[in-house]
Amino acid sequence: MAIKYAERVNNLKKSEIRELMKLMTDPEIISFSGGMPANELFPNEEMKAIAIDVYENDYKQAMQYGTTDGYPKLREQIAKRMQNRGMSNIKADDILVTSGGQQALDFVGKVFLDKGDAVVCESPSYLGAINAFDVYQPEFIEIKTDESGMIISELEKALEENKNIRFIYVIPNFQNPSGRTWTLEKRKSFMEVINKYEIPVVEDDPYGDIRFEGKHLPTLKQLDTKGLVIYLGSFSKILAPGYRLGWASASEDILDKLIMIKQGSDLQASSISQIEVSKYIEKYDLDEHVNQIKKLYKSRKDLMIKTMQEEFPKEVKFTNPEGGLFLWVTLPEYMDASEMFLDALKNKVAYVAGNGFFPNEPMKNTMRLNYSSMPEEKIVKGIKLLAEVIKSRLK
Amino acid sequence: MAIKYAERVNNLKKSEIRELMKLMTDPEIISFSGGMPANELFPNEEMKAIAIDVYENDYKQAMQYGTTDGYPKLREQIAKRMQNRGMSNIKADDILVTSGGQQALDFVGKVFLDKGDAVVCESPSYLGAINAFDVYQPEFIEIKTDESGMIISELEKALEENKNIRFIYVIPNFQNPSGRTWTLEKRKSFMEVINKYEIPVVEDDPYGDIRFEGKHLPTLKQLDTKGLVIYLGSFSKILAPGYRLGWASASEDILDKLIMIKQGSDLQASSISQIEVSKYIEKYDLDEHVNQIKKLYKSRKDLMIKTMQEEFPKEVKFTNPEGGLFLWVTLPEYMDASEMFLDALKNKVAYVAGNGFFPNEPMKNTMRLNYSSMPEEKIVKGIKLLAEVIKSRLK
Repeated sequence: MAIKYAERVNNLKKSEIRELMKLMTDPEIISFSGGMPANELFPNEEMKAIAIDVYENDYKQAMQYGTTDGYPKLREQIAKRMQNRGMSNIKADDILVTSGGQQALDFVGKVFLDKGDAVVCESPSYLGAINAFDVYQPEFIEIKTDESGMIISELEKALEENKNIRFIYVIPNFQNPSGRTWTLEKRKSFMEVINKYEIPVVEDDPYGDIRFEGKHLPTLKQLDTKGLVIYLGSFSKILAPGYRLGWASASEDILDKLIMIKQGSDLQASSISQIEVSKYIEKYDLDEHVNQIKKLYKSRKDLMIKTMQEEFPKEVKFTNPEGGLFLWVTLPEYMDASEMFLDALKNKVAYVAGNGFFPNEPMKNTMRLNYSSMPEEKIVKGIKLLAEVIKSRLK
Repeated sequence: MAIKYAERVNNLKKSEIRELMKLMTDPEIISFSGGMPANELFPNEEMKAIAIDVYENDYKQAMQYGTTDGYPKLREQIAKRMQNRGMSNIKADDILVTSGGQQALDFVGKVFLDKGDAVVCESPSYLGAINAFDVYQPEFIEIKTDESGMIISELEKALEENKNIRFIYVIPNFQNPSGRTWTLEKRKSFMEVINKYEIPVVEDDPYGDIRFEGKHLPTLKQLDTKGLVIYLGSFSKILAPGYRLGWASASEDILDKLIMIKQGSDLQASSISQIEVSKYIEKYDLDEHVNQIKKLYKSRKDLMIKTMQEEFPKEVKFTNPEGGLFLWVTLPEYMDASEMFLDALKNKVAYVAGNGFFPNEPMKNTMRLNYSSMPEEKIVKGIKLLAEVIKSRLK
């Protein structure tokens, strides 16, 4: 007898992210593929002092089970940080601590999607979110984007034509993969449409704090008057991914559902991670730490852009992000970044081909580059190596 | 417009475990309800030394993203521990590290269950597993159990009559909630049936190492010749739950599916938890630590049994486990442990009513008691308080 799996896993392919993670262990390859923060900025000395404190004074709580919704003090600190970003009415009770931001994506899929329901997303959208939702077997409706964000007329058309849309998934700040940021105008018109159709919105904002140019714009959550926006945050990019801590903030009814799902999925996020991160926020200056991250990422982004301007053929276009970790490259239409990938690897440079970021119709001539994790000399060298591969394919 | 949720969450109720966790924060109540390990045995001094080492020497890896299947060295150590328990052919590549044992339960549900499929489980079975599977909308088929384990003739009948069974979920060692252990005979005849029908088996073994009486029996995984058994383990009961680390071990095809599900669900278990626990296993003696746990739990279990023998009316029956954290109380048939619970709380003692452990037909006159987490004087006092409540309801 062949073992029978659920329908939802039959079409699963090994994620490109996962496969790419494995490649990154080859030290010879200059990889712009992952989404890794710069590990040289991890506040290890501070976290060491905190770990000593926790293991001396709070270990009975830190090593034990805790509540499903999260460590109470950390929930307060998260609410406070959201208030400081302009979401002034957020309270600790509005927060669920998740085991990383990815888990919140799985949970919204689990809470909203029956087979055949529809999810609206930007085109392109985050690969990990597409994978998370995909197991719940929805239809994906991609909405075209431009420099200012999702094209609102296209969104309205989709909402008008599809009655089975369960939520809209967006990344308005320094989008993964495109690096683009929605304008204030765009955010406002988006929320007008949302309020008209009353469809839940999943606002994924793991990079929002890492704005190294321009001024913070209001989040959709801040503009939300009807409790429709589910805001997702993460400590992975502003502190460290190794703790696996993120959060979801939603109106009461939705949050209750998410908490019940959390209970069955893994009981709770790590107690020890939560208490250590909470103490870090209490005793040190997380915003000052984020400032260091911003400074470094801006200089790396600038260097990558400058090198691309010098090295890439003029037919190649790329975004110039105001924050976050990624930029988006558009090759001439006749090129296929996925098919070119093995050549790139042979030339000891890696990226993520764009096709995984489109749930339906891939733009094959696109790729995502990460600028946060590579030291300066490798950025220059890696872009030169990549330019060689691209040039060799120019018609 | 009312927000439309997925069908799977419409019937979710707040888990009793979660609600009970909240009660346990009232220090006046003597609670036998949770499944908490004794926090006085947590090896905090050792873990402090390890945390210092990690934050000084391995922080760039420990605070960063890692691979989805788990920290390679920890996977090796887990495989080694399984080998030492008699599962001699297990290798590191057969292991997926999960964010606690609960997550592996969610994953097997996600991998195997379409709506309307059937899961076979013991009657009673673990509440958290029932909750984890329930969101995938299966039918539950409960198989009666006796002192020696699942009644095999009933299992065969169910397998004969139901063609939609996707897996069988069992806890052969010190079962949660009953505290019962399957005999060797039972394990062998169970595997004969499994081999005949070739149905996957989920063997949940979080308590297996904590045998304080008698000798280890072979796991089903050890007796498995056809790659049908998915073995689930956990560090929560042998080290500490706060790290949220468990694992699944399965044959290649099934493990591949679980790993793909892990990727979309939360990318990976905490890097820092994995590296710290790995170093603990490397530098200290986890088995010696488990010996301390066994010694303490045996003395607490013996004290609870002795006090129940002295205080409970003779109509009340209870199991006498050879290991694990729980025992199972059967009240006279006319009593309802769920309905009695508020009286117990008023009398400052708590337990878990048995009904949550039966997915279909609850035995209302049952309850689960935990003996691992309460100090000796509270065990005596709490059992006396509980005896008062029971006696007040005797007919």
